[in-house]
Amino acid sequence: MTGFVCPVPLHSTETVLLGHGSGGKLSSDLLHSVFLPAFANPVLERLEDQAVLEFGSARLAFTTDSFVAKPLFFRGGDIGSLAVHGTVNDLAMCGARPVALSAAFILEEGFPLSDLRRIADSMARAASIAGVTIVTGDTKVVEHGSGDGVYVTTTGIGVVPPGVNLSAAHARPGDAIVLSGAIGDHGIAMLSAREGLELDGEIASDSAPLNGLVEAMLAVTHEVHAMRDPTRGGLASTLNEIARESRVGIVLREDAIPVHAGVRGACEVLGLDPLHVANEGKLVAFVPMQHAAGVVKAMRRHPLGAEAAIIGRVADCDPGMVTMRTVFGTTRIVDVLPGDQLPRIC
Amino acid sequence: MTGFVCPVPLHSTETVLLGHGSGGKLSSDLLHSVFLPAFANPVLERLEDQAVLEFGSARLAFTTDSFVAKPLFFRGGDIGSLAVHGTVNDLAMCGARPVALSAAFILEEGFPLSDLRRIADSMARAASIAGVTIVTGDTKVVEHGSGDGVYVTTTGIGVVPPGVNLSAAHARPGDAIVLSGAIGDHGIAMLSAREGLELDGEIASDSAPLNGLVEAMLAVTHEVHAMRDPTRGGLASTLNEIARESRVGIVLREDAIPVHAGVRGACEVLGLDPLHVANEGKLVAFVPMQHAAGVVKAMRRHPLGAEAAIIGRVADCDPGMVTMRTVFGTTRIVDVLPGDQLPRIC
Repeated sequence: MTGFVCPVPLHSTETVLLGHGSGGKLSSDLLHSVFLPAFANPVLERLEDQAVLEFGSARLAFTTDSFVAKPLFFRGGDIGSLAVHGTVNDLAMCGARPVALSAAFILEEGFPLSDLRRIADSMARAASIAGVTIVTGDTKVVEHGSGDGVYVTTTGIGVVPPGVNLSAAHARPGDAIVLSGAIGDHGIAMLSAREGLELDGEIASDSAPLNGLVEAMLAVTHEVHAMRDPTRGGLASTLNEIARESRVGIVLREDAIPVHAGVRGACEVLGLDPLHVANEGKLVAFVPMQHAAGVVKAMRRHPLGAEAAIIGRVADCDPGMVTMRTVFGTTRIVDVLPGDQLPRIC
Repeated sequence: MTGFVCPVPLHSTETVLLGHGSGGKLSSDLLHSVFLPAFANPVLERLEDQAVLEFGSARLAFTTDSFVAKPLFFRGGDIGSLAVHGTVNDLAMCGARPVALSAAFILEEGFPLSDLRRIADSMARAASIAGVTIVTGDTKVVEHGSGDGVYVTTTGIGVVPPGVNLSAAHARPGDAIVLSGAIGDHGIAMLSAREGLELDGEIASDSAPLNGLVEAMLAVTHEVHAMRDPTRGGLASTLNEIARESRVGIVLREDAIPVHAGVRGACEVLGLDPLHVANEGKLVAFVPMQHAAGVVKAMRRHPLGAEAAIIGRVADCDPGMVTMRTVFGTTRIVDVLPGDQLPRIC
């Protein structure tokens, strides 16, 4: 798809819908109908989660995300740590070592300064753990009722090591698909905090910085083909993007995909598919089969990869399609989220 | 001040006020009481409008700003062009050549897609004119009533040429203070658009990319000491920051500061001081006296510097203080804006 932008008509939808922020099909429509035609350039059109820019012999990764998480504080994190982890992870997914972050705040008039301090302290802790520095920032204030407490936009710069060349377009038939751990924790933790649900097992967000885990993986081999963190839209949306960008088929094994019992239970009760639920501390990697066992072994030695597993493979048929062999022995298509399932999870 | 952060107590103010976003004293209080203590690091503590990072032999400038301008469209621009110009200018103020921008959007549910297209197209035009590319981005959506149409956060990367070393801490006694043109146009244009005021002379925002003008100035000499664009808080706040950071006194000549008649009239009617009103296409530079005439001459040849003038000088007394010789022959102190004069002008 690189280098060619197909404007998508927006059907009868002429205003912004919550689903446009879902990370699923409507988000993709908005990107293709508004932003890509306006900003047309080859770097943006690669549709990676980060841009890689060349400065002399150095390659820098550059990525931005706004965070509108609701509630601001939840089990396992808050909007501040989430904003640091999200941007650190987008840098890490192209193999970059995160170096510097910026942080821009949109504050609502009347927001308690004690909460703002708590969020800033949490960002500082998260940045310190990830080994990155918040070097510049901005603050704007909007009237009461024109915001929702605080929105945070973090932007990151990282250095891509020589020889690393990860891209959603680089998955190849024969690649093993490696997942770093159980899926759905973040989305269910957010939903539970927002709706005050009483769920078994006290599910916490998995929000975490993945750069250390990525470093451990790349120490095994630089030949990892593609890597993504399955955030909004869940693992299903991420795998569909890679299948489409790489023009390959993806075949998953349901019994190999780790899902914590609490998340599985919550999804059953709420009618959600864990494959569509957001993660904030997981990655999926496409690794040539001969390196897969070594990469998984290295991941399992890292605290954030203890449950790492090979969950499927890249096939040389059905390009652009993700299918899954279910625990019942049947095969089903795994599609992207059509609308919005859980708004404002990040 | 570099390297030492003095936490400022927040008096009885325990929630965010509109004035915290003014660019004046309350903004500074918030920075010193919340963000600097949390994020403590030497790059941030320089309090420049951009961070300068070293990558091997290259120096990169890195800066971010959120834009919450209200209304979204105004005479002379819109939130999109403003978001591009603002970040391009923060890069240019350290002498950097802007290279790449990111753009993160927080959209309110129900916002017309036609307006979003108009804003994206305006950003693309502004970026093209400034010679910079929007290479990565993000979109989030919040519920109707949790935003105000669209907020845009732009972050920029630029390359600082060798030999250029601008800083708000580098002004020196004997420097001429050079202003690129008339002040107050942006703030008055925003106020007029927001309140539906009928003002004489149809004042338009001066929103513009200053990197070309800066290039023309640095072609005369790399020995410019300090440069800033006087946005929120106006020229008065910017000059006070430089006086404080450089520990020098600043003496202005009121009759040398260009103010368009329409802005002067509006300020008189509304009880505003043009020195406190925001600009989005002006810069103030501190230039060693022997280079000042050459720099002003080069600026006047550039369309954005046609009204450039020497408006004052750096004195070796009263460090941290800005005074002005008025048109009546008296001398007055020029202070920062204490609270908020015109909220949401950028």
